[in-house]
Amino acid sequence: MKIKRSERLVDMVIYFLQNPNTTTPLNYFSDKFVAAKSSISEDLTIIKHTFEENNMGSLVTYAGARGGVQYQPYYEDKQLKKEILHLKNEINGSKRLLPGGYIYTSDLLSEPKWLKRIGKVIASKYLTEEVDAIMTIATKGVPIAQATAYNLNVPFVIVRKSSKVTEGSTVSINYLPRSSSEKVEKMELSKTSLKEGSKVLIIDDFLRGGGTITGLERMAEEFNCEVVDSVVFLEHNSKISNESYHSLLKVTSVDEEDRTIEVDIGNFLSL
Amino acid sequence: MKIKRSERLVDMVIYFLQNPNTTTPLNYFSDKFVAAKSSISEDLTIIKHTFEENNMGSLVTYAGARGGVQYQPYYEDKQLKKEILHLKNEINGSKRLLPGGYIYTSDLLSEPKWLKRIGKVIASKYLTEEVDAIMTIATKGVPIAQATAYNLNVPFVIVRKSSKVTEGSTVSINYLPRSSSEKVEKMELSKTSLKEGSKVLIIDDFLRGGGTITGLERMAEEFNCEVVDSVVFLEHNSKISNESYHSLLKVTSVDEEDRTIEVDIGNFLSL
Repeated sequence: MKIKRSERLVDMVIYFLQNPNTTTPLNYFSDKFVAAKSSISEDLTIIKHTFEENNMGSLVTYAGARGGVQYQPYYEDKQLKKEILHLKNEINGSKRLLPGGYIYTSDLLSEPKWLKRIGKVIASKYLTEEVDAIMTIATKGVPIAQATAYNLNVPFVIVRKSSKVTEGSTVSINYLPRSSSEKVEKMELSKTSLKEGSKVLIIDDFLRGGGTITGLERMAEEFNCEVVDSVVFLEHNSKISNESYHSLLKVTSVDEEDRTIEVDIGNFLSL
Repeated sequence: MKIKRSERLVDMVIYFLQNPNTTTPLNYFSDKFVAAKSSISEDLTIIKHTFEENNMGSLVTYAGARGGVQYQPYYEDKQLKKEILHLKNEINGSKRLLPGGYIYTSDLLSEPKWLKRIGKVIASKYLTEEVDAIMTIATKGVPIAQATAYNLNVPFVIVRKSSKVTEGSTVSINYLPRSSSEKVEKMELSKTSLKEGSKVLIIDDFLRGGGTITGLERMAEEFNCEVVDSVVFLEHNSKISNESYHSLLKVTSVDEEDRTIEVDIGNFLSL
């Protein structure tokens, strides 16, 4: 069905936003809209420009037989820094310190508004990398993993901390959640959840000792998967090398009396 | 800055898709684009039409001082049924039966493609209701809750099955996960997670005995919240009145030997 340019543009934007990180041949559009490829190209130029103006990422065109156009949702470096500073300002000075040195972030990590931004922040650095799946651990890593998966258009697998009967056969490993002085815990992942040999991006909400991230890396190894990177939303007193993970924010000081915390931007931006 | 209609249309579509279920005054657009209200109205007509053509929902205009235009992401009844049938076909006849009568659905509930559709299916029925928050229970309810929250543009709160030290003070209740013959478990929710008096939509992945949903309803009561409805992705041998919840799909038969299951559409469509 032949339609007007204005409707075609609206239709194409809907398509791109619903199918991020997916290569679509130009034929798809010229067939769907019964339009010349030159018209489609002009449309793409307009859309690309407006995406870039709106900090939405961009359209990227690939040549060749398997080529086409792809919507990549990302923040440019300048905007990326702004977004992380925005998160920093939201957390700084607020009463988030919980007993045991934990930090309360559930308010942010349950709001679509924040999750959409965090997901796009993380995805920004991995769109050009090969990522087959995101791996996270229950429960608070899940929303961030899902938000990122929406942008990268890959599945996310959820490692569980305790044995559940609902998952069929699982691979389980023991790990030290925080430091070597504490008790060993168990994490497990259903065998069918993750394809052998996948390239995996590990995502969690909080990193303290680093034991959970190390455990997730070993879990990935058990599935013969390659870890592309590990990303955490917030780190506090990490005890592992900061070359082995990237954090959006890190705690710089805590006021035990006021229960307030100060954070700074983490090493994610240096990626 | 004055820009061309084509770019304005692209910009507006981006805005609506990023801000579902949010009323925006027309002034916002006429100011942003330095355009007459009549031009903006024409744009809205084009966008509304194309959204409807693409099963994306529609634009709804509210009159009055606090009025404006709102993007409501939903499937029309016919498409809603198609979407649920699509899910049914994906599950029917596949090897999903796990020991203990559980059903494996993690593959679907970890794919952005499926989650986006499921979230929009559920949201379709509650856009015109007042919903302040979604309540779900860890772990497998979370992705569906988040997907729905993205469409309704409300926060989702995660009730946990066991005590965690990371949440500060909590309200906890005991519940019977499946039937009265089994052991009592505990679920809890951090006090700061949910505002008193909120209108809550309960979402979970799987309903068997109904004890978890009943527990979540009681949890909502503890916060003086009103339960708008309870929705589950899949039900199997429910033991509670089917007026108290809505299911997208229900298990109609299981083949213990083959480990395959048959499902039919649940009572969600009759809502």
